[in-house]
Amino acid sequence: MLAIGLMSGTSLDGVDACLVDIKNGKFKLLDFITYPYEASLKERIMRNLSNETAKLAEVSSLNFELAYEFVKAIDVLLKKSNRKYKDISFVASHGQTIWHDPDGVKCENAVPNTLQIGSASVINQLTGIKVVSNFRCKDIAASGQGAPLVPFSEYYLYRSKNKNLVFQNIGGISNLTYIKKNAKMDDVFSFDNGVGNIMIDYFTNKYFNMPFDKDGAIASSGKVIDEVLDYLKKDEYIYLPYPKSTGREKYSKEFMEDMASKLNFEKYDKKDIITTITEFTAFSIGYSYLNFLKDIDLAIISGGGSHNKYLMKRIGEIAKVKVISGDEYGINSDAKEALAFTVLGYMTLKKKPSNIKSATGAKEDVILGDITI
Amino acid sequence: MLAIGLMSGTSLDGVDACLVDIKNGKFKLLDFITYPYEASLKERIMRNLSNETAKLAEVSSLNFELAYEFVKAIDVLLKKSNRKYKDISFVASHGQTIWHDPDGVKCENAVPNTLQIGSASVINQLTGIKVVSNFRCKDIAASGQGAPLVPFSEYYLYRSKNKNLVFQNIGGISNLTYIKKNAKMDDVFSFDNGVGNIMIDYFTNKYFNMPFDKDGAIASSGKVIDEVLDYLKKDEYIYLPYPKSTGREKYSKEFMEDMASKLNFEKYDKKDIITTITEFTAFSIGYSYLNFLKDIDLAIISGGGSHNKYLMKRIGEIAKVKVISGDEYGINSDAKEALAFTVLGYMTLKKKPSNIKSATGAKEDVILGDITI
Repeated sequence: MLAIGLMSGTSLDGVDACLVDIKNGKFKLLDFITYPYEASLKERIMRNLSNETAKLAEVSSLNFELAYEFVKAIDVLLKKSNRKYKDISFVASHGQTIWHDPDGVKCENAVPNTLQIGSASVINQLTGIKVVSNFRCKDIAASGQGAPLVPFSEYYLYRSKNKNLVFQNIGGISNLTYIKKNAKMDDVFSFDNGVGNIMIDYFTNKYFNMPFDKDGAIASSGKVIDEVLDYLKKDEYIYLPYPKSTGREKYSKEFMEDMASKLNFEKYDKKDIITTITEFTAFSIGYSYLNFLKDIDLAIISGGGSHNKYLMKRIGEIAKVKVISGDEYGINSDAKEALAFTVLGYMTLKKKPSNIKSATGAKEDVILGDITI
Repeated sequence: MLAIGLMSGTSLDGVDACLVDIKNGKFKLLDFITYPYEASLKERIMRNLSNETAKLAEVSSLNFELAYEFVKAIDVLLKKSNRKYKDISFVASHGQTIWHDPDGVKCENAVPNTLQIGSASVINQLTGIKVVSNFRCKDIAASGQGAPLVPFSEYYLYRSKNKNLVFQNIGGISNLTYIKKNAKMDDVFSFDNGVGNIMIDYFTNKYFNMPFDKDGAIASSGKVIDEVLDYLKKDEYIYLPYPKSTGREKYSKEFMEDMASKLNFEKYDKKDIITTITEFTAFSIGYSYLNFLKDIDLAIISGGGSHNKYLMKRIGEIAKVKVISGDEYGINSDAKEALAFTVLGYMTLKKKPSNIKSATGAKEDVILGDITI
């Protein structure tokens, strides 16, 4: 059985589309593309993510427009892999989140809610393929946060009978999923460690005019500044017991510039600053392992951080665990989310639940999504 | 098999809920309620129907809030009819339309779109009942107007082997569905005749301080003013060939007051004005029958207009057809739309199309809606 997974993420760069072969419940990634959004579309989506600038007429139109983009992504993917609509058993489409208020606090009288757009009806009508969509609502209805939903796919695809695994994602923020050996669904848990690449990238850009510290080359050439590291370690979030989640906004430009000014970053070697911030990032992640996870046989790192060899090395040294990249473990970082929703769509069509309660906080196991036939 | 249909209409008074018994594809209405919205909720929905005042945070929250109201309606309906969630095979939920732009003209770059809210995930999660929802999108994706969808249910429930039937609805606007004897789905068509009760109600309210002309009592006691009738008959819409549709906004307060002033309504007996406007309304409808429909054995009138006996009589006389009310034909006017969506939901679960192409303008027969299990 062939299936397609579609994910349009917060970066708004485009829609990720993966082609997957499913045999006896085993998933094999066959192909992957990112179909980019034109700048004008990206801009229109962007302004409809904000309560101040969103317009009902545009939101409703974008619900359909994005679906046409998703179909174009499917077309490119199928052409690349020499397949046709009729070869595909189902499409699992996450859609584009334009609003997420799982605590129901973002307007007066709100109840917990979330909104993904990209009409499944359009995808289904244009391709004739069955579509599973709208994955987050049911978890919210079951008192969950509607996120994260990826941990189920990690559990489903990668759990091990004899290894305790940490799936560590290092994006702007870092988050992990812990899957002990022989885990059941309810054993799995997931939380945000804290900072990810966001500070490293910010200061690398500021001092070296590069978008990120490639391979951790800068960090590996400097030394830690104790005063700065001690300051950073005052981040209380690190020490909070899970369940917990944080966001990019915690490590804002204001926060970083305030620190740079307070600690007079100007007086330091700029390489040392990158080394120190990388050290702090490794510490945040390593602390989680040492204090919140019982046994770890392997930490598998995905996301941008998995390309920072120095960061990976320091995490391993701090937490005294074996660390490898997702790529080494056979996980395609780019396709990870699109693949995850393919797994969730498959479960829905099998009438099986796929929310991890300990990850989302939901009170019940629920079958996620709507089916469009 | 028992099923529930839910419809939240443009009046925003509340949600209509019907309980239906389905046996061998035959539908029997068992019970019906309208669960009213509180004034504050109605007000919040109202301001989120307008592109100027809608707020993304509220739209997303209302998507969930309305679903909780729908569940309350289900609870009341089931309590009244002494049934439980587990007795119900499916819920068909139209939801609340908050935006409808089937031509994609209401904002820059728009594509055809429509938006119904009232999360199926919430209904499903709280009741455990399978839900079919989101009926209009697929028809829009198939280049239709996403409306009207009720004609299919008229065809399915009421078509006759030996009678040519007109299903005439007289609300603010009047619209008909024509189903010739032994019709196939593609034979059915539907269009707006033109004005419905909107003018009768307006002037009855203005001159007699009553919301409508009960039983047509006022109209039946006056006489037609030729000058006014001739003026009204200049309404070009009446003579346009179908497919065609119109809206309440055509017969606006401004239009009516402009006419009253131009023709100096003050100089006439007010009863005669009501008689004349009723005559024009009957003419608009009768003209459709005489000029656009081939053979009619019976016209079955639903909606508020079906209570206006004088209007009914005049339609019959003008068009020379037998006219009866929906109630006499066994159609519960109040439950009609909720029942219609129950029929559509049933078809979806049977994997059968249920859009009438000649009514919506769609290019293909499509299976409507999403299924939440």
